[in-house]
Amino acid sequence: MPILNKDMTLCISLSARPSNNGTRFHNHLYDQLDLNWIYKAFAPTDLAQAIAGVRGLGIRGCAVSMPYKEDVMVLVDELDPSAKAIDSVNTIVNTNGHLKAYNTDYTAIEQLLKSNSVPTDYSVLVQGAGGMAKATVAALRDAGFTDVTVIARNENTGRALAEQYGFQWRATLDGGTADLIINVTPIGMEGSMAGGPDVDSLSFPEDAIAAAKVVFDVVALPAETPLIKAARAAGKQVITGAEVATIQALEQFVLYTGVRPTDEQVRAAEDFMRAE
Amino acid sequence: MPILNKDMTLCISLSARPSNNGTRFHNHLYDQLDLNWIYKAFAPTDLAQAIAGVRGLGIRGCAVSMPYKEDVMVLVDELDPSAKAIDSVNTIVNTNGHLKAYNTDYTAIEQLLKSNSVPTDYSVLVQGAGGMAKATVAALRDAGFTDVTVIARNENTGRALAEQYGFQWRATLDGGTADLIINVTPIGMEGSMAGGPDVDSLSFPEDAIAAAKVVFDVVALPAETPLIKAARAAGKQVITGAEVATIQALEQFVLYTGVRPTDEQVRAAEDFMRAE
Repeated sequence: MPILNKDMTLCISLSARPSNNGTRFHNHLYDQLDLNWIYKAFAPTDLAQAIAGVRGLGIRGCAVSMPYKEDVMVLVDELDPSAKAIDSVNTIVNTNGHLKAYNTDYTAIEQLLKSNSVPTDYSVLVQGAGGMAKATVAALRDAGFTDVTVIARNENTGRALAEQYGFQWRATLDGGTADLIINVTPIGMEGSMAGGPDVDSLSFPEDAIAAAKVVFDVVALPAETPLIKAARAAGKQVITGAEVATIQALEQFVLYTGVRPTDEQVRAAEDFMRAE
Repeated sequence: MPILNKDMTLCISLSARPSNNGTRFHNHLYDQLDLNWIYKAFAPTDLAQAIAGVRGLGIRGCAVSMPYKEDVMVLVDELDPSAKAIDSVNTIVNTNGHLKAYNTDYTAIEQLLKSNSVPTDYSVLVQGAGGMAKATVAALRDAGFTDVTVIARNENTGRALAEQYGFQWRATLDGGTADLIINVTPIGMEGSMAGGPDVDSLSFPEDAIAAAKVVFDVVALPAETPLIKAARAAGKQVITGAEVATIQALEQFVLYTGVRPTDEQVRAAEDFMRAE
């Protein structure tokens, strides 16, 4: 790592329970690209004061995670369409005191649907109705998917999300199948962020996996969730939450620095991030 | 330097024109003492928002330099006597959101008068009436000095400062001499902080140096000001601004971390700071 100095540009993240991923990923890229920048995660004691600090200290970039993605919207000066469309912010860029908010989760899902050439006439099942589900459903709609069903036990949030984008809602999967199945619940997630109980659970049953052409798990930790493992075993095309996490972090990096690292540099930063 | 991680405790400084000294000094001590801490200087765009950020981000310590030492007083929760006595803050410690302000310049001058065994019955000339002059005059009074004259062209600030502590004021030196002469003006200071024109000037005339027993220059950069060089050449006991700067930074370090480094560790951090 470089010798710390007064001129380093600071980027931060705000999260109730930060992981170490952003700090390792961004700092490794700064190092590779010889940028005099520094990145550190924070668990803020007060969101409004933390955002005041972003302005007052001239902090260039600020990632926003659970549970601040919605509350932060009123504290910024401008919403990029990526954040406005889904009422959720995960990235703030500070340009001379003007705070513009983005959602790079949306951008990442949009890119992955495209780079994996998922046909837009595929039927889709999306399981979940939280912040990441919003980004997922919006990206599906904007990509041109029309046959989408949101599965969520909570009718209030589930139905509202589906109807906002002209899609269907169902409380439970109930034997349903589709060409593209997407898990956006914490099922299969490890560690403290998920609370832990579901780490070994399969977020879709075996027959839904068997009937699918593409299986997409938005859970990023572990990279190989039970759903992804089962889908690989069944020979399905898979899209992983680890890919979402890397692309969204990379897009934050590009928004902050204006520099787009090479694929090789991104892989090196990912390897460093996971090598802890 | 250590690999940056999410759990590092952050300390910062706020100054309109930061030097790199604090960043290098504190980070080097963190490194030597194996503390998972990090330090960085900032030039804030807005003082109140920056202090909000100290609270909201849980920043542990905050050094305060020109021109914020007075304005910051209303933004903290508690004033230590070292700051209250002289209406000037150079250090803030954040303990679970409670901001307590100190003045370690005062502490440093107090320590140096004691460690140099300067007799309190010495006559004293203090040249200057700014923030550091306040700390100097207060430390002199609290140490027991009684025969003190403040020299300052500006009668408003000069007379007010002298009278606050029961001392004399004079507009110009006018051939005056004393046992202890102290420069607290920017005369002899190098670089952007001083504006530059006085870097080669002697802040006291040769005859005042000749008549003095102890010569004290509060200017820290360069360590060997024209006044200090002339005093050494005349065989006088000297106290330098570099000593003030190191002690005040060390006292900040102790207030933030609760750890007092050894003299050897402090010297290593000073050497690193100056090796740039």
